[in-house]
Amino acid sequence: MTETDPLSLARDILRAQPFSRLVGADVRAFGDGGATLELPIREELRQQNGFVHGGVLSYAADNALTFAAGTVLGAAVLTAGYSIDYVRPAVGVTLLARAEVLHAGRRQAVVRCELLTVDEDGEETLCALAQGTVRAVG
Amino acid sequence: MTETDPLSLARDILRAQPFSRLVGADVRAFGDGGATLELPIREELRQQNGFVHGGVLSYAADNALTFAAGTVLGAAVLTAGYSIDYVRPAVGVTLLARAEVLHAGRRQAVVRCELLTVDEDGEETLCALAQGTVRAVG
Amino acid sequence: MTETDPLSLARDILRAQPFSRLVGADVRAFGDGGATLELPIREELRQQNGFVHGGVLSYAADNALTFAAGTVLGAAVLTAGYSIDYVRPAVGVTLLARAEVLHAGRRQAVVRCELLTVDEDGEETLCALAQGTVRAVG
Amino acid sequence: MTETDPLSLARDILRAQPFSRLVGADVRAFGDGGATLELPIREELRQQNGFVHGGVLSYAADNALTFAAGTVLGAAVLTAGYSIDYVRPAVGVTLLARAEVLHAGRRQAVVRCELLTVDEDGEETLCALAQGTVRAVG
Repeated sequence: MTETDPLSLARDILRAQPFSRLVGADVRAFGDGGATLELPIREELRQQNGFVHGGVLSYAADNALTFAAGTVLGAAVLTAGYSIDYVRPAVGVTLLARAEVLHAGRRQAVVRCELLTVDEDGEETLCALAQGTVRAVG
Repeated sequence: MTETDPLSLARDILRAQPFSRLVGADVRAFGDGGATLELPIREELRQQNGFVHGGVLSYAADNALTFAAGTVLGAAVLTAGYSIDYVRPAVGVTLLARAEVLHAGRRQAVVRCELLTVDEDGEETLCALAQGTVRAVG
Repeated sequence: MTETDPLSLARDILRAQPFSRLVGADVRAFGDGGATLELPIREELRQQNGFVHGGVLSYAADNALTFAAGTVLGAAVLTAGYSIDYVRPAVGVTLLARAEVLHAGRRQAVVRCELLTVDEDGEETLCALAQGTVRAVG
Repeated sequence: MTETDPLSLARDILRAQPFSRLVGADVRAFGDGGATLELPIREELRQQNGFVHGGVLSYAADNALTFAAGTVLGAAVLTAGYSIDYVRPAVGVTLLARAEVLHAGRRQAVVRCELLTVDEDGEETLCALAQGTVRAVG
């Protein structure tokens, strides 16, 4: 029965993505035009200088944009494109990708995402910003 | 001695990125304002419908942009930001990210990248396009 | 003496831009990491279907991003690049471009901008979103 | 009768845009997935340092992307969003926005655009790059 709440359904979809399992992402929040993905920062997610790889931030942004749009457009959505601006090197314990739908029509949504790292004291630091368009398919 | 050629140096840098090893990327070409990354498409890189995950395309774009800029700005570079437009679902045997510097000043470069899948007959199909700015650091 | 307040200085800079005079833009707010530009919507700013031309929205976004960054980086700044997502056709009496710095280092800032139209009753409607990076120069 | 060739039709559409008349744009080429807009650089298009205003480059990019997509998707198109990276300050006699469709489906196209200035000797200089997605409407 608990599988019918939106957060659980979103988690099922994320777990059905082999790449999201490889990266180790989970859904922390899902609903009402917003979605937050969470990734424990581990060695395999870093680049050569010890920071979280930009590709991980990109993955998290892309996926959070899609999930946030999914809360208003339904599950059959795909990200048409997005842009990302890096703010500072990402270090910490956890990476959060917090996305919010700014506008949704029937067939597409414009969504923004903040990428934040969380340190061991729970302090959040902004490390990148993304914005993109997600479309309903089918 | 072979370690001193640019392609070998680029491969060393890529292999020093734990996330690039996790994803399974290699450098196919590097030099003269261009860089091509190559990823064997395996199950772990897919999303729930069997296509290569958008986050993998984003990773490859981000990294190829950075490497291409590195051929003109030196190894100490970071991608300031980029945008990506998805063209079609990505399926195939290999993913290529082919980046080219369109303009480089002393401290920054503007770079474009084509994301292509290659099927078992060697046929290339465009699946996404990216464009971004890379800066020299330090 | 009144010329020394930041808003007046920002207006002087905008008026020193021939293109901003051609378009008819003014600065409504300027300071503390934010800037708002205002454009009366007149016939000359439209496209063939009667909506505000996308190029006008782009102009306003680009300039508002630059001015917002100027509040934290100083007057010698230039926009390195930005992306814009259109939300709906723009109609109304006034166009507002409301930009806010999300992060600023010593040499660059990442800024977001909302483009809104205001109708004759003062009601605001979101018509586009932009995000970009602005750099200090000189 | 000459009105039926694609270039003439494109010029008619551009001239039906009051903002394009205000800016002074013309269509130089139109067809086969490509479009080139041309703007004589005059005083009214500059910013405070004498360079072509970024908003003019943005206008030209936005419009060229839309027109290029129009060659494959038909006249009823709108630009969903795009990103622009500035390469260098724009000076010269003429501004060209040269756009090319990289991929078109039935309902949308991904398009790139180069912004070039031309000096009095006819020499072209790259000043910005854009990339975006255009959708068919109606």
